[in-house]
Amino acid sequence: MPSPTKEGTETSATIEETRRFSPKFGPDGTLPAVAVCATTGEVLMLAYMNQEALDRTLETGEAHYFSRSRGKLWKKGETSGNVQKVLELRTDCDQDAVLMKVEMVGSPAACHTGRRSCFYRVAPIGETNGELRFADAERLFDPKKVYGK
Amino acid sequence: MPSPTKEGTETSATIEETRRFSPKFGPDGTLPAVAVCATTGEVLMLAYMNQEALDRTLETGEAHYFSRSRGKLWKKGETSGNVQKVLELRTDCDQDAVLMKVEMVGSPAACHTGRRSCFYRVAPIGETNGELRFADAERLFDPKKVYGK
Repeated sequence: MPSPTKEGTETSATIEETRRFSPKFGPDGTLPAVAVCATTGEVLMLAYMNQEALDRTLETGEAHYFSRSRGKLWKKGETSGNVQKVLELRTDCDQDAVLMKVEMVGSPAACHTGRRSCFYRVAPIGETNGELRFADAERLFDPKKVYGK
Repeated sequence: MPSPTKEGTETSATIEETRRFSPKFGPDGTLPAVAVCATTGEVLMLAYMNQEALDRTLETGEAHYFSRSRGKLWKKGETSGNVQKVLELRTDCDQDAVLMKVEMVGSPAACHTGRRSCFYRVAPIGETNGELRFADAERLFDPKKVYGK
């Protein structure tokens, strides 16, 4: 394994093989973070982290994200109570994305719409303008009650 | 379920509950696409799609991405032969990400480093500057042989 590299001298091979965690944030200062259920492996959501959100997540073991629309840090579950306990955090080959194995505390629903996963609609293969089909779309909580809207 | 909405009049609730697929690409014209193994559910990779890559994927049932670094469309497996057959494609609540269940054709390795998954390094929880640990990092092919570099 190559030694940790000096700032500014990294090649793609060193980024891929180093033990040094140097996350590569995008132009807006964020990177995508995918949360999967630690028990079943199913993908629950994809949101974004900036450096602060990533640091808070690593420090506390609870998922923090950065809301690109609201321009602020948020802790998952701060309103709903549905905190994500992070059992494992991985980075990918080019260190511009992270993957977390999480345990949902409170409701098993990770999506703010009340569903288990944010990925509750399927686009048909074989056509480019097909209609979405709802799948695994049962609501586990009422978002109006939880978020008051 | 609300009826499909007119362009420009969509609220977040209609985007979340519509059957109309209107993917929301970022400022650079791409959105993140997560590929998971259709059999085991494990996350293999996260890459990006622009409209063309998404259309080609839906039309052909084989994963196409847009390389942000090279600024071009690429079909997964065009060099390595390790095509991803897309069995299902989902979008998320706000339609700015996609999730695919894929079957790897050829090698089971989805990562260009020769590994099964791009997520082969774990960052320690409890510290913000910890060293990465390699996990599930066995190479299933030699990238030098496959890509000639």
